[in-house]
Amino acid sequence: MAVYTEVTDEELSAFLSAYELGQVLACKGIAEGVENSNYFLQTSAGSFILTLYEKRVREADLPFFLALMDHLSARGLTCPQPVHNRDGNALGRLAGRPAVIVTFLNGVSVKRPSARHCRAVGGALAELHEAGRDFSLKRANALSIDSWPALFAAAAGQADTVATGLAERTRRELSHLAGAWPTSLPTGVIHADLFTDNVFFLGDRLSGLIDFYFACTDALAYDLAICLNAWCFEPDGSFNLTKGQAMITGYEKVRRLEPKEAEALPTLCRGSALRFMLTRLVDWLNVPPGALVKPKDPLEYDRKLAFHRHVRSAAEYGLVR
Amino acid sequence: MAVYTEVTDEELSAFLSAYELGQVLACKGIAEGVENSNYFLQTSAGSFILTLYEKRVREADLPFFLALMDHLSARGLTCPQPVHNRDGNALGRLAGRPAVIVTFLNGVSVKRPSARHCRAVGGALAELHEAGRDFSLKRANALSIDSWPALFAAAAGQADTVATGLAERTRRELSHLAGAWPTSLPTGVIHADLFTDNVFFLGDRLSGLIDFYFACTDALAYDLAICLNAWCFEPDGSFNLTKGQAMITGYEKVRRLEPKEAEALPTLCRGSALRFMLTRLVDWLNVPPGALVKPKDPLEYDRKLAFHRHVRSAAEYGLVR
Repeated sequence: MAVYTEVTDEELSAFLSAYELGQVLACKGIAEGVENSNYFLQTSAGSFILTLYEKRVREADLPFFLALMDHLSARGLTCPQPVHNRDGNALGRLAGRPAVIVTFLNGVSVKRPSARHCRAVGGALAELHEAGRDFSLKRANALSIDSWPALFAAAAGQADTVATGLAERTRRELSHLAGAWPTSLPTGVIHADLFTDNVFFLGDRLSGLIDFYFACTDALAYDLAICLNAWCFEPDGSFNLTKGQAMITGYEKVRRLEPKEAEALPTLCRGSALRFMLTRLVDWLNVPPGALVKPKDPLEYDRKLAFHRHVRSAAEYGLVR
Repeated sequence: MAVYTEVTDEELSAFLSAYELGQVLACKGIAEGVENSNYFLQTSAGSFILTLYEKRVREADLPFFLALMDHLSARGLTCPQPVHNRDGNALGRLAGRPAVIVTFLNGVSVKRPSARHCRAVGGALAELHEAGRDFSLKRANALSIDSWPALFAAAAGQADTVATGLAERTRRELSHLAGAWPTSLPTGVIHADLFTDNVFFLGDRLSGLIDFYFACTDALAYDLAICLNAWCFEPDGSFNLTKGQAMITGYEKVRRLEPKEAEALPTLCRGSALRFMLTRLVDWLNVPPGALVKPKDPLEYDRKLAFHRHVRSAAEYGLVR
């Protein structure tokens, strides 16, 4: 949660002169997003988010993300909509960074989701998958199973300083998943990072999805596995079956899982838990001096992995057949 | 620039249930203010700033600050207006902190003020002084000349690690000011921290003043000296006489300086420069590990002090008589 790049009033005015957004009424750095600098921007034309992309987002990927938000918005999904300037470009440059203005979404993220929230998220995820069907651009998942051995190699030597046995557990998990990973599941656009921070609600009603900067082309059911991990565990580490059932039911109201997706769900949950454990572990071991962001606990996902290792079928996540 | 305290959606809902502000539409931590945690809060009733007071603001002082904002707003000054809840209280508690909701002000702060901006700030400062005339509460300036020896004592031993000779220069300055400090100037409510961050503009028009958390009862002309220091020096350290003249002229359009205030202005400028040098020096030498805020450079004010030491009369700041 930080603003990495400061934008002066003069830089902002120069940047906005290419847009039809009227007069600037307010511009405030907001503590949201760990990858980029975000500003709440109010102009006589409305409310917007101004994002400056920092080093962790590859500039070459931005056209994919922006086209995806345009595509999903056009299909009625509530997500930030890139604002195009007079030349038709959504992507500009500000304070030396790639920069984009998107529409502001109302809503508040929930810290402790209820089963109703989980159901709504399941539904929105399936709607995203359906809306993405005819999206023509592709982007490989940079954090797919192929990337995990290299992530682990970067952290293996120090893993046991975080928790005893973590290195060996992770090595066995990688080896298991390398053999068990499903390869012929339905694929399409996935969000790949739909944590509670990235879903807005107005009361119980889901009002929008944000932060598409991990979106990619991958197995649709893997996205559901990410959400089960992110939304359906309790703070004490236990899996809440009611929430899992609500999420899967919400998903299937829109898009029914194929038998092979259902069958693969335990493996996908293990994989997505491992993916977040690994990236968190690498971040945990590499906090730069003067970091503005507190790293997230990798062991939360190590514990989720331990749960998934004992799951035998998707019914244990709440799938009803 | 940071959000020190995170507020969950549940805590927020419970807090807002005491107010008549309708439904929450958005609540985002904003990177503004170094002393407190601030949230941009949008509800069906409008836009607000929610502030949680962190340890540097004394809770006992909050009634003074809130009453002052109420008082100044009622007299037509554009400043944040505290929102009172159904029980009539402006001050509440949220996430274990004293918390207040104030109205949101449109406007953008300028990084490199022009003479027009300086003139507008001078005028607004005088309007604040006039509007504060009949404000009944008093608050001693916790950072008045009486506090400077103790601040210096906290930093003296390490001062020369920041700049050679700083300790000795500062000691001499303290000694000079102890003898020269004016004691019978007109006093009243002063803002005491009217830096560029705390003044909003829409184009060239000043649209509001914010951050009254250093406000106190002290010499009115001292407030002008703070502003001359904060607004009228160039990045290269030179004093811009055109800006100084614009600021003083703007001030005097509303409130004419008395002869003794004019005479004291060079001493007041030295004192206010020393005050900011000292507080910055103490902060500079005491950056906590994991600090979210980059400390400000004390030497900027050491250099301003060097300029003021050669000033012989207020004419050198731009006062025309």
